[in-house]
Amino acid sequence: MDPKLGRMASSLLALLLLLEGGMFSASPPAGLERVFRHIELQQDAFVQTLKEWVAIESDSVQPTPRFRQELFRMMAVAADELRRLGASVDSVDMGSQQLPDGQSLPIPPIILAELGNDLKKPTVCFYGHLDVQPAAWGDGWLTDPYTLTEVDGKLYGRGATDNKGPVLAWINAVSTFQALEQDLPVNIKFILEGMEEAGSIALEELVQKEKDRFFSGVDYIVISDNLWVSRKRPAVTYGTRGNSYFTVEVKCRDQDFHSGTFGGILNEPMADLVALLGSLVDSSGRILIPGIYDHVASLTEEEKNMYKSIDLDLEEYRNSSQVKKFLFDTKEEILMHLWRFPSLSIHGIEGAFDEPGAKTVIPGRVTGKFSIRLVPHMNASVVEKQVKHHLEDVFSKRNSSNQMAVSMVLGLPPWIANINDSQYLAAKRAIRTVFGTDPDMIRDGSTIPVARIFQEIIGKSVMMLPLGAVDDGEHSQNEKINRWNYIEGSKLFAAFFLEIAKLHE
Amino acid sequence: MDPKLGRMASSLLALLLLLEGGMFSASPPAGLERVFRHIELQQDAFVQTLKEWVAIESDSVQPTPRFRQELFRMMAVAADELRRLGASVDSVDMGSQQLPDGQSLPIPPIILAELGNDLKKPTVCFYGHLDVQPAAWGDGWLTDPYTLTEVDGKLYGRGATDNKGPVLAWINAVSTFQALEQDLPVNIKFILEGMEEAGSIALEELVQKEKDRFFSGVDYIVISDNLWVSRKRPAVTYGTRGNSYFTVEVKCRDQDFHSGTFGGILNEPMADLVALLGSLVDSSGRILIPGIYDHVASLTEEEKNMYKSIDLDLEEYRNSSQVKKFLFDTKEEILMHLWRFPSLSIHGIEGAFDEPGAKTVIPGRVTGKFSIRLVPHMNASVVEKQVKHHLEDVFSKRNSSNQMAVSMVLGLPPWIANINDSQYLAAKRAIRTVFGTDPDMIRDGSTIPVARIFQEIIGKSVMMLPLGAVDDGEHSQNEKINRWNYIEGSKLFAAFFLEIAKLHE
Repeated sequence: MDPKLGRMASSLLALLLLLEGGMFSASPPAGLERVFRHIELQQDAFVQTLKEWVAIESDSVQPTPRFRQELFRMMAVAADELRRLGASVDSVDMGSQQLPDGQSLPIPPIILAELGNDLKKPTVCFYGHLDVQPAAWGDGWLTDPYTLTEVDGKLYGRGATDNKGPVLAWINAVSTFQALEQDLPVNIKFILEGMEEAGSIALEELVQKEKDRFFSGVDYIVISDNLWVSRKRPAVTYGTRGNSYFTVEVKCRDQDFHSGTFGGILNEPMADLVALLGSLVDSSGRILIPGIYDHVASLTEEEKNMYKSIDLDLEEYRNSSQVKKFLFDTKEEILMHLWRFPSLSIHGIEGAFDEPGAKTVIPGRVTGKFSIRLVPHMNASVVEKQVKHHLEDVFSKRNSSNQMAVSMVLGLPPWIANINDSQYLAAKRAIRTVFGTDPDMIRDGSTIPVARIFQEIIGKSVMMLPLGAVDDGEHSQNEKINRWNYIEGSKLFAAFFLEIAKLHE
Repeated sequence: MDPKLGRMASSLLALLLLLEGGMFSASPPAGLERVFRHIELQQDAFVQTLKEWVAIESDSVQPTPRFRQELFRMMAVAADELRRLGASVDSVDMGSQQLPDGQSLPIPPIILAELGNDLKKPTVCFYGHLDVQPAAWGDGWLTDPYTLTEVDGKLYGRGATDNKGPVLAWINAVSTFQALEQDLPVNIKFILEGMEEAGSIALEELVQKEKDRFFSGVDYIVISDNLWVSRKRPAVTYGTRGNSYFTVEVKCRDQDFHSGTFGGILNEPMADLVALLGSLVDSSGRILIPGIYDHVASLTEEEKNMYKSIDLDLEEYRNSSQVKKFLFDTKEEILMHLWRFPSLSIHGIEGAFDEPGAKTVIPGRVTGKFSIRLVPHMNASVVEKQVKHHLEDVFSKRNSSNQMAVSMVLGLPPWIANINDSQYLAAKRAIRTVFGTDPDMIRDGSTIPVARIFQEIIGKSVMMLPLGAVDDGEHSQNEKINRWNYIEGSKLFAAFFLEIAKLHE
């Protein structure tokens, strides 16, 4: 599609949204009008830069030298871009990564960049990542995943929304102030990594190390690495669930048995394990481990009301999820069970017969795996004790001669922010200015460790301010960011700079 | 070891056994004394033939052209050996086998051979197989698996006990009568296959086809393809359990879910499946499917007594099984639960997370696998109905929105023989003559389809008359047959020919 048509569609959509919202946004504050116009006028250049970044195959998941080389190139290109903004840029060497096969691959540097050092201004640190999930044209992509392609106002390409687009939107906002020779209302720091999709190896270590240096003056941390829950309504994310991952091993002996030769005289480990796993959760999704709900934050009226206003089309959500029926019928219940209540999922069993066909084996040693998503104010080590106590109780009642061993292999606490922090108020105001509507105040049911890492180590307010729409398809084929989201998102960040500067004063 | 020493050890062991049994065998009947002496004198030649057969790498499990070639060579060598006995030999071409990878390999011929056609004599058909399980020196073999090696009276080699040794023992018995120019008291038929370890492909089809031709005059069928339950006491096997193998699939959708994004609002298929599998059997091994025990034959005093006299050292059995504790404490209970009661084993789950590590997946579609070993007089199709009814009942109570599908993918009935059939009486007498003791009357907990195939299709008495000791290690590393078992086994078959001829009259 002609980019001009794309722009028109984008503007039209913005207008429709405003009409639909039943209100017109107030005209932007004086300084912002110029900023917004500049962003509109520069949008093709901004899309062009995104195209150049998407063209770099910075896949961190497939550990090959070629992709690793692309990752290094990506980090170098980003460092150059930040230097052009006038930032001082430090590309921190993170050493190398030992792979399970013995191979060693270098870890791409983490970029620490600083722009501005005015003690009267607040300092906002932006976290983003420049690595992407794997993508190949053969996998169901309708366009080449590494060639940003615009169709009907949608910019298709791997990394377009996760997370190159939002990183560039932040850069666009900064560069606009500079292009207009307008005073940047905040000091900016950047921390950009290249291993997020591979588990953010080395990130926490660096944050810890830089706590009292790079992060010392930071007032706010903004992450823009998730999505709205709506196609059109912006969102601010103030919490994620944590996760405690358990293994429970039941062992009779190391080798398997033949079910003809031994079936009938053994405490079979699979029978024990199935009973243990079956004791964890009932068919309504309620966790049966005693005490597990004791520390779950009680629901306030204020919180309850927030779910009501969230823009989630339940029917569309159900259809796009390809699920016949959810456990709950209302939007509010569904959101609460995804965000503010714990859930328990059984992932599978290691050591049993898992292939096609009909093997008559009695597995000798099996390991069940399940995890509990943690919510405020659950504590992973309390949960660990509750789970162990419960499973030991169930197992002892079976009187089995097998051995059982329970381990918590991962215990990531939930993250929750105070939505009355200045930056949340600033983001809301900025959203109202740019989009003419209040945002959905949302959480994420999954665990995003960076938010918690920053909050725990640096001890400052962390906010997730997503730009992408619910249907952007991060991680899947045909990932995209709407041109509208990308450009309005750049405006949003610019407006946010002004609002946070005002509120911080 | 010097073969002469081996012979001495073998004779000594026989003597010890007789002393231990508290009795001396009566001198063998007139005709047999010469037969036995001849077998003793020929034993090195018999071992040499076994060595030549073991040297052929007739592995039917690994579907490679080389092993397949070895299988054809094995069948040809056996056909020659039978022709030397004077048998008319038919090597029936069984066509070829389509492998899952599209490759096609020829199936080794099944040998049908006949020797003698005297209407006054009974006709005994011997079934055996000449293919073997895979074996490689690196796998823990102390000697080259394809070089029969004698150590302390034990003949180590792949196929030595399973099943080349017993096939040759039968041939040794026949050839001895011929060498002595002594009238063979029975007509002999052989059915020898080369695909037993690969599931006896094509055997049933051939038996069906030859029912009214090759098998028309057969009175008794003897299989010698299992082991004693003792190291020293012979056994006769009169039953095997059947097997009904089930899959139960629970499906929400084809793709998996992320447990962060969906955990808490789904009827998770794994939770349903674990509840279904957990409803099948209790911790004492009792099957919980209503009606499942209805058709299990009731235990008679006579049968009960048979278990008492069986030579099973429970402590040694437990130790060699590496099991801390069985479900039952007495020999009788253990044997009954292996042989004459059904058992249910859960084999595993397909479609769930089964690898090492901690993946936060909600499997979208999972298939549980379990099987029930069937005993007289259970019927697979009745069991199928009971299982389906039970699982549907459990599932419906969960009120899950998932779909469940139960299938019985295999329904092999149990096999049981009448131990008062002539050939069982003849075998007991022959065992008393050769070993000076009564045999253990045993069953096999696993399913040996050939016995049932012969019984069902041909409708004649089938007996399993094993020669190998409990510690022969069929299918495992360092498989062996004792020289003593091989040679006394050859005598046993010779004595059996005489006894069955007498009883048949």
